[in-house]
Amino acid sequence: MSAGNKTASLATGQRSFGPGNPEFPLFPTHLSGCPVTSTAEMQYPLELAFDYGEAKDVGFTEASRQSWQQLMPPLHPASSMPVGLTPLIDVSAIAPERLRDRGVFIKDESRNPTWSHKDRLNKYTISAARFEEASTIIVASSGNHGVSAAAMAARAGLNCIVITMPDVSPAFRDMILGYGAFPIFLQVDARWPAMRALREVPGTYPVSNLTAIHTGHPWGPEGYKTIAYEILASPGGEPPAAVVVPTGYGEMLYGIFKGFREARDLGLTQRIPQLVSVEPAARGPLYHALKSGKQATTVPGKPTIQGGTGTTVNGYRAVVAVRDSNGIPLLASDEAALAAHAKLARQGIWQEYSSSAAFAALDDLEGLSHDGPVVVINCSTGLKEPPRSMQVKEATPDLPSLRAYLKSEFGFDL
Amino acid sequence: MSAGNKTASLATGQRSFGPGNPEFPLFPTHLSGCPVTSTAEMQYPLELAFDYGEAKDVGFTEASRQSWQQLMPPLHPASSMPVGLTPLIDVSAIAPERLRDRGVFIKDESRNPTWSHKDRLNKYTISAARFEEASTIIVASSGNHGVSAAAMAARAGLNCIVITMPDVSPAFRDMILGYGAFPIFLQVDARWPAMRALREVPGTYPVSNLTAIHTGHPWGPEGYKTIAYEILASPGGEPPAAVVVPTGYGEMLYGIFKGFREARDLGLTQRIPQLVSVEPAARGPLYHALKSGKQATTVPGKPTIQGGTGTTVNGYRAVVAVRDSNGIPLLASDEAALAAHAKLARQGIWQEYSSSAAFAALDDLEGLSHDGPVVVINCSTGLKEPPRSMQVKEATPDLPSLRAYLKSEFGFDL
Repeated sequence: MSAGNKTASLATGQRSFGPGNPEFPLFPTHLSGCPVTSTAEMQYPLELAFDYGEAKDVGFTEASRQSWQQLMPPLHPASSMPVGLTPLIDVSAIAPERLRDRGVFIKDESRNPTWSHKDRLNKYTISAARFEEASTIIVASSGNHGVSAAAMAARAGLNCIVITMPDVSPAFRDMILGYGAFPIFLQVDARWPAMRALREVPGTYPVSNLTAIHTGHPWGPEGYKTIAYEILASPGGEPPAAVVVPTGYGEMLYGIFKGFREARDLGLTQRIPQLVSVEPAARGPLYHALKSGKQATTVPGKPTIQGGTGTTVNGYRAVVAVRDSNGIPLLASDEAALAAHAKLARQGIWQEYSSSAAFAALDDLEGLSHDGPVVVINCSTGLKEPPRSMQVKEATPDLPSLRAYLKSEFGFDL
Repeated sequence: MSAGNKTASLATGQRSFGPGNPEFPLFPTHLSGCPVTSTAEMQYPLELAFDYGEAKDVGFTEASRQSWQQLMPPLHPASSMPVGLTPLIDVSAIAPERLRDRGVFIKDESRNPTWSHKDRLNKYTISAARFEEASTIIVASSGNHGVSAAAMAARAGLNCIVITMPDVSPAFRDMILGYGAFPIFLQVDARWPAMRALREVPGTYPVSNLTAIHTGHPWGPEGYKTIAYEILASPGGEPPAAVVVPTGYGEMLYGIFKGFREARDLGLTQRIPQLVSVEPAARGPLYHALKSGKQATTVPGKPTIQGGTGTTVNGYRAVVAVRDSNGIPLLASDEAALAAHAKLARQGIWQEYSSSAAFAALDDLEGLSHDGPVVVINCSTGLKEPPRSMQVKEATPDLPSLRAYLKSEFGFDL
């Protein structure tokens, strides 16, 4: 009853983002960036190339969902968890006034198997691992990426080692262990040496990054293309003016961009939305790279509550996505993220803080080139944030005077 | 971009489950059970009656989803959160051997707005509240029901008071407060007097039960009918042999039954699946009611970790659903629920314990009347369970000997 893989992938190989865009066969997957164009200073990622000329009956409607599989990486039948098909939630009513007439929608990625967008990526990284006959996934993450990899590896019959931090949140720790993965608790400086050491062990297969400048797994961003396809397939169907994306290394940012680019190149939509990246104001390597015209920058690891996007180096894919979509890089403070978190909750939407930051950034979103709605990605659920010590009064009211009590104690008018 | 309400509801009134099945107008909603047939000993719930003869172009396929709105309660436009459209996950590989050839699937209700099935119910109870011009939802719950009501009320522009327990889990407490609801922390004995006192305040509107024998809100179970419709609309489309449902008061159990009954009565499917209820072995009022031929029983509140289904009295709707579907009442111990929780997690599926109990009960599921798959409902995410103090070693390995370390420390073969 899951979507299955009735339609074959048209992927033909791996294409480098480096100078000259050299291409490589589809296998073996290059897990440390481009082996030809990378230098000591700059490592280039790869993406998949497809034979779009062979695509048959592709349509971006609900009825043609099966056809999308042609544009996705090969899907191993063991990677069988249903992901995606997440809804759009209309939040125009609480959006900045100048955006309301366009329509503002949350694409709610918390409705995935491990309640984050990362399941879309790992469905395909784990598929690649199975095709390459790995025994053991290795992943360095204390967040959504690690728990998603653990779940998707378990589903596909693979071992999983998660290199995480001693202070990983209880919810993530429980999930990592529950999914049957082995956690290794290391301080941040020890993570990369451990990752590289594990990589040398036969049968291991990394699904997180191994390079100084982020490159990641070539198949990962491809998993996010369905976000673009689903947006095009939603009722109304009009391409958005902009898609606003909480951005760490930018794998999702690029995947969404590429999905829309494919739709345009196939003649099925007129234009590509502007991709808007949102990073924590305390860090924001992509923002600084773009403002200074660089391919990548590194920033100090100042504190931020935006755990999901608090990277200190950007990925080059993100630069391409913003540049080639005439996009806009934005920053959001923790204070703005918390205020947006509260505002969204009053609409029944409970997000992790790094995603609320994307909604907060709408305040700075100006100069859009096209008509059409704005879509903001919510990556994950607020249930994954550590419980907050909110001030609560323990109330055991005298029942006959409950109304007066609520009024006097809480200012609450019934 | 949400489903909207283009098709009008065919609901014509409220029909009692009591003797003679008296009918009442659609409004005002009877929130304390049937006002005519209830007695001091037995309170009867109500459901909605529909003019099925007027139904146009109803089909249980993806393409005909808009047509389902005819069979649902009236939907107020303010109750606009997208719910449902949850996936089926194939778990045949870990099901008891005698069931594998049928196919066993999890219907994953953790992919709802507040990550539980309750959103389907509250979408409609809150719709009713808006039609009746309430200002303030009141709900007694320390679990999924309360947080869902808080979210859906916030979305619809209503106040919400959640009567909950001082030891409510931090995750639920955060969500209740975050969604802007007012929690009142009371011990269990004080909850019902408080609920009834609040009911007297003008503008309040209860969406949880007010009677000794559970009756609940007449519109609630109707919200669950889409689970049946979605199962029928899934690829393959064959009606299941059985649907296995974690059961508290049985509102979901009855709603799923009613959905399939409507499909059969409209001539769109051949038969109704057997409804299988699963309750905690420590309690199980429905099980005991059915075994003793009663409409309802009350049981002592013995401890159980199955919080979502640990009721001490059953609802009469549940008796009807099991009886009229030739269904099967089952019990599951906490030990079995925990074992199933672990087994499902190794498939990448992280459930609350009361739902894992339903999977555990497959061990006792025998004597099915029909061919076809078995569908097991997962109500909610394991993220809502309190973090467990699992035994974890803090590992900071000597990197060159990591492999030997993992082998000797964890017995883990890379």
